[in-house]
Amino acid sequence: MRIDILTVVPELLEGPFSHSILQRAKDKGLAEVHIHNIRDYSTDKHRNVDDYQYGGGAGMVMSIQPIAACIEELQSQREYDEIIYMTPDGELFEQSAANQLSRVKNIILLCGHYKGVDERIRELFITKEISIGSYVLSGGELAAAVVADSIIRLLPGVLNDETSALTDSFQDNLLSPPIYTRPADYKGHKVPEVLLSGNFKKIEEYREQEAYRRTKERRPDLLDS
Amino acid sequence: MRIDILTVVPELLEGPFSHSILQRAKDKGLAEVHIHNIRDYSTDKHRNVDDYQYGGGAGMVMSIQPIAACIEELQSQREYDEIIYMTPDGELFEQSAANQLSRVKNIILLCGHYKGVDERIRELFITKEISIGSYVLSGGELAAAVVADSIIRLLPGVLNDETSALTDSFQDNLLSPPIYTRPADYKGHKVPEVLLSGNFKKIEEYREQEAYRRTKERRPDLLDS
Repeated sequence: MRIDILTVVPELLEGPFSHSILQRAKDKGLAEVHIHNIRDYSTDKHRNVDDYQYGGGAGMVMSIQPIAACIEELQSQREYDEIIYMTPDGELFEQSAANQLSRVKNIILLCGHYKGVDERIRELFITKEISIGSYVLSGGELAAAVVADSIIRLLPGVLNDETSALTDSFQDNLLSPPIYTRPADYKGHKVPEVLLSGNFKKIEEYREQEAYRRTKERRPDLLDS
Repeated sequence: MRIDILTVVPELLEGPFSHSILQRAKDKGLAEVHIHNIRDYSTDKHRNVDDYQYGGGAGMVMSIQPIAACIEELQSQREYDEIIYMTPDGELFEQSAANQLSRVKNIILLCGHYKGVDERIRELFITKEISIGSYVLSGGELAAAVVADSIIRLLPGVLNDETSALTDSFQDNLLSPPIYTRPADYKGHKVPEVLLSGNFKKIEEYREQEAYRRTKERRPDLLDS
């Protein structure tokens, strides 16, 4: 799988893709992440990428030309399954969308910055708009990193233990049950006895009950869907 | 404001806090972000920070000792308003929570990694649990960066134009209206005439209508709240 990320602040994305699981996915040849500086595509003599809003108001708008040039160059090299704009007014990202995107081949993630992109970019190029949550960030870069991370970890072979992703929260519309490790007694705070029992049937029952209880308590909306 | 982030992969957080708005907030003395490597607090001879789950199953669990040691050291230095655990089964983060957290003085963000932390850490230390959305990430680091970013940009003086954050999506339960910049005509795709009219009353009306229309179409849930 290949992910191309378009941004005006490529430095923001240095850390997230050079370490941990994402680096491992790259090393194993399971995922490629390419970060493009939109500024490199500006034909403006000052390499400008933004301009004032029509109609007035605070905040700059990302111009069409450099974004269009970058997308068109990428499209001339391969076909893209989705060209996604990261924006607070996009579709709310959920695990089901991550599962779906983990099965496609090439995607572009366009990071909004300043007040966002000229509306015509959305009309002419974008096939999907994603919001990672109902809050505003200083740019779409962290949102793109979140989406890339959630997708890449689902690719077969990326996680060390393949069963690990399947028991995550959300994969069965349930949150995870509580987990414990050594010591069995921490300053008087003990691990539930059933987990020390060695009785796998009972442990399984305990975990199912706890997953259900926790979901009902914290995220009853997940049980309705 | 001071934010302490506790993580087992500090490298992941290098980019996000060294550039753009977050760097500006630090330079102006408006926000301090300190990143702590949980491994440095491990008393284990191999500096281990995780261990197998009681009851069996895939995935490692973050141990109590190094996290407790790190939190206790920080607490001995100052009082914390919130000690927050970043976890997919936490409370869904929204703009109202960002607004609220932007008014406190000191917070700790504990990043979950692997399968998460020993449940007793949550019981003994954590005052608030936050999820940035209904999806699973390879760790809480990106989630902590998202929360820190959303909070810090709200601090007075961080954004260049103070009015900019107030017109963002969500601040009035409405998404933003479409925005445009030059050229007025891009290959036949034109900016709506009202925005070029210079009639500020009409422009204001257009923006209100579009914000409402877009919210109704994309996020009707916001209008109910």
